[in-house]
Amino acid sequence: MAVEENVVVIGKKPVTDYVLAAILLFNEGYDEVIIKGQGNNVSKAVDVYNALANRLQDGIELVDVKIDSVERGRRLVPVIEIKVRRKIV
Amino acid sequence: MAVEENVVVIGKKPVTDYVLAAILLFNEGYDEVIIKGQGNNVSKAVDVYNALANRLQDGIELVDVKIDSVERGRRLVPVIEIKVRRKIV
Ligand SMILES: [Zn+2]
Repeated sequence: MAVEENVVVIGKKPVTDYVLAAILLFNEGYDEVIIKGQGNNVSKAVDVYNALANRLQDGIELVDVKIDSVERGRRLVPVIEIKVRRKIV
Repeated sequence: MAVEENVVVIGKKPVTDYVLAAILLFNEGYDEVIIKGQGNNVSKAVDVYNALANRLQDGIELVDVKIDSVERGRRLVPVIEIKVRRKIV
């Protein structure tokens, strides 16, 4: 079976909303969740990861962190994708 | 011989300043440079990495990206450490 994953895109809502969104995806059965942030939300994506890790403790593991840039209008903005896996206990 | 590394800590200066700081470290003989950003500077650290990669192209490779949190006063702020290696051509 392929690993099932889904994406939480970070925007203007409070950190807790994205943490709950990630937990909801795990509860729906996704094995992996990607926390994605662009521009200033790169920092917030790391905040969300930290809050999620603090909440789920040993229940998740960090798979990998990708960084890149993406064009937004005529500017290049930074992007981060933090992949987290639900641990089978 | 141990790998020699050094750290560029991202602050309020323009992105280009940190790119030049990293290049200077490579020119001084360091094999690896860590680009480190805290709080809002996490996004800027990814900007610096992208600008450095764009400038040095095949001359560097991304080793790894660490994310974590650190206490600043009574708050936890996000941290990123981007490790880049000079490629031997
Ligand atoms: Zn599947």
